[in-house]
Amino acid sequence: MHPPRRADDVRMRGFAQRHTVDAALVWLDAQLQPLTAETVPLRLAAARVLAASVVSDVDVPGFDRAMMDGFAVDADGTEGASAYTPVQLKVVGESMPGCPFNAVVRTGEAVRIMTGAPMPEGTDSVLPAEWIGAEEDDAGSVSSLNLIIALAAVSPGKHVGKRGEDIIRGTTLLESGRVLRPQDLGVLSSAGQGEVQVVRRPRVRLAVTGNELLPSGTPPRGFYIADANGPMLAALIDRDGGLVDFPGLVKDDREAILEALYSDADIVIVSGGTSVGIEDLAPMLVAQYGELAVHGIAMRPSSPTGLGRIDNRIIILLPGNPVSSLCAYDFFAGRAIRVLGGRSKEWPYRAVCGRLNRKISSPIGRLDYARVRIADGLVEPLAVTGASVLSSTTRADGFVIVGEDSEGFRAGDEIEVWLYA
Amino acid sequence: MHPPRRADDVRMRGFAQRHTVDAALVWLDAQLQPLTAETVPLRLAAARVLAASVVSDVDVPGFDRAMMDGFAVDADGTEGASAYTPVQLKVVGESMPGCPFNAVVRTGEAVRIMTGAPMPEGTDSVLPAEWIGAEEDDAGSVSSLNLIIALAAVSPGKHVGKRGEDIIRGTTLLESGRVLRPQDLGVLSSAGQGEVQVVRRPRVRLAVTGNELLPSGTPPRGFYIADANGPMLAALIDRDGGLVDFPGLVKDDREAILEALYSDADIVIVSGGTSVGIEDLAPMLVAQYGELAVHGIAMRPSSPTGLGRIDNRIIILLPGNPVSSLCAYDFFAGRAIRVLGGRSKEWPYRAVCGRLNRKISSPIGRLDYARVRIADGLVEPLAVTGASVLSSTTRADGFVIVGEDSEGFRAGDEIEVWLYA
Repeated sequence: MHPPRRADDVRMRGFAQRHTVDAALVWLDAQLQPLTAETVPLRLAAARVLAASVVSDVDVPGFDRAMMDGFAVDADGTEGASAYTPVQLKVVGESMPGCPFNAVVRTGEAVRIMTGAPMPEGTDSVLPAEWIGAEEDDAGSVSSLNLIIALAAVSPGKHVGKRGEDIIRGTTLLESGRVLRPQDLGVLSSAGQGEVQVVRRPRVRLAVTGNELLPSGTPPRGFYIADANGPMLAALIDRDGGLVDFPGLVKDDREAILEALYSDADIVIVSGGTSVGIEDLAPMLVAQYGELAVHGIAMRPSSPTGLGRIDNRIIILLPGNPVSSLCAYDFFAGRAIRVLGGRSKEWPYRAVCGRLNRKISSPIGRLDYARVRIADGLVEPLAVTGASVLSSTTRADGFVIVGEDSEGFRAGDEIEVWLYA
Repeated sequence: MHPPRRADDVRMRGFAQRHTVDAALVWLDAQLQPLTAETVPLRLAAARVLAASVVSDVDVPGFDRAMMDGFAVDADGTEGASAYTPVQLKVVGESMPGCPFNAVVRTGEAVRIMTGAPMPEGTDSVLPAEWIGAEEDDAGSVSSLNLIIALAAVSPGKHVGKRGEDIIRGTTLLESGRVLRPQDLGVLSSAGQGEVQVVRRPRVRLAVTGNELLPSGTPPRGFYIADANGPMLAALIDRDGGLVDFPGLVKDDREAILEALYSDADIVIVSGGTSVGIEDLAPMLVAQYGELAVHGIAMRPSSPTGLGRIDNRIIILLPGNPVSSLCAYDFFAGRAIRVLGGRSKEWPYRAVCGRLNRKISSPIGRLDYARVRIADGLVEPLAVTGASVLSSTTRADGFVIVGEDSEGFRAGDEIEVWLYA
């Protein structure tokens, strides 16, 4: 009998060489730039990313207006007024929002005015209602007075919002790249903009493979399991601003996977069948029809992750194990979707600091993703580390990253935790 | 001539008495409880709030499965195996995901197995590919071998994921009140759930009033201004999980406002016409047809804010000035929408700390909302304070709250800033 050979030589082997996470990201980042612009109506623009700066072509407001309810006057006509030397003013009309007083007001006259209403010609200030006196025998409300008495002087410009106070014509309202806030829509609207140029959302084809899978919504039975990755990845893609194209499960066969790889999409995400076995078709197909730039990454979980291109499409191969799939999505796919959509490559998770209650070990040369809970201010690694135990990511409050140059953390170390949102 | 009377006596006056923000929130919170449940398909459930805890009625996985590619064996058959004393095993078949090996495996036999595939009867462990040797004269890949050689012993249970490893039948998967994460959808799906009970989204009728307003998308002209509040508030309502009903601008007249107040909605938000002038119809109508519990709040901006009820609807009256509208929305309306929708009453903004670069003054007894920028780590209050200058909230990075019991902050103070998102 010949001395045995290791099976690695023949075919069913691990990855010959693994890329570091950093090296994989360098390749990925070089593929990414924001997509072209599209025009959307303002009401659909919240949280979208501006593709071009917006300059106002109007003043807002387009006229001087009252900032208080009261009486519009020429300030000169109130000079010297006080409670002891009240000055009588004649009410000649009213100015309401959208319904101005259309004559010239003379010194010594007043126009009843509401907040937001245009200042009549000849007036420069608003005498607030609290500074007005009425004749004792005048029964009605201030709104019906014909004569009023100023109990104080008002200075020119007082309680007047000047034309262009909010926005001056020619001002850049918002810069390209801005993620639109609710109030941004208000400002754009007030400047008369009804639509806006935003970065197109990346189209993401989601191809979940696995002959053992039943579609989401089906109870697992026999040796079939219900798809967990499809609904999870679809929600992640949506969170990161991608448009999900997920027509259903894809069979583990060459034609079905090729069809997905040639989808009309900016990014194709394949889940499952991404390792090095002969049933792992996706990496072979990407290498054959395009470029498989990265395959096998020095991380746990998610080492059987692949990155590549076919024509203009970025291809991301995610492991089928659901925790691996989540982790590799967050490291690579989410980043690609966000950057194509004009967003930050950074995680959408919030980081907090906490003290570790027991050690986390990790070999040098491999990045580890450890799920943790936070209890009583202490960070507690979950005992379960299996990449198939997705429920660990629902029990966890977040995760900790041990970099490839670290052997881990000791109990008591202050570490950074990324909180699942 | 009689001594003058203050006009306050007659009608056009400020608020007789202002509620504190805290008192207003006490009234509001007492009105709020999560709405009833509705059933939605899992693919629409991301970021929704669970209305009932979910218990699994299945084990996941429902069978023992391989956690590595390799050979399923009875561990006893590998006892004593090493590179020097290799043990030969006969390959009797293969088990693939969804396609199990359907006979009983005997000690000394092996079944080629892929990650995720069911463990055949008679096997208890997986011998990884790296521990396998091949005969020198065997040309093919491991996948075609009929005989393999174990170079190491494997212990029972090694590389096997046990039935129920992820989820044990009867386990509570997720608790009521949970805001569903992407991975939660994966876990629910893997347990066979195709739909889920979530808290109904509050229906919010948005009634933007103002005869001076042009609909969003219209350039401002003459003494008309384009509606800023409508698109801003619609985006805020959506952000907080509400279903926006915004059919268009509402005229400043009794019938039009009443129609809005009687909408089929959980919350009616009226913007504009909420102060104490005779044109401020909404507060009078709420008082007449329901309860106007709060009107006038000791805060700046946003003092002309009202809270009330008509029948089962919560009514929130927001000032028409856009900054006031934003601020009052965040203090009252957003909170109501979130709590009705089963969410936290806390702001969806992130707080950071920073050092103030110049003082912020505020009178005791009034809460102030100051827009700030953060530059070089310093917090800088914006000079503009006008409630009509909405562009201040787009130039600002966030805001600072000066409580009613505070006179403000000094330059150099470490203060909390809420970042606009």
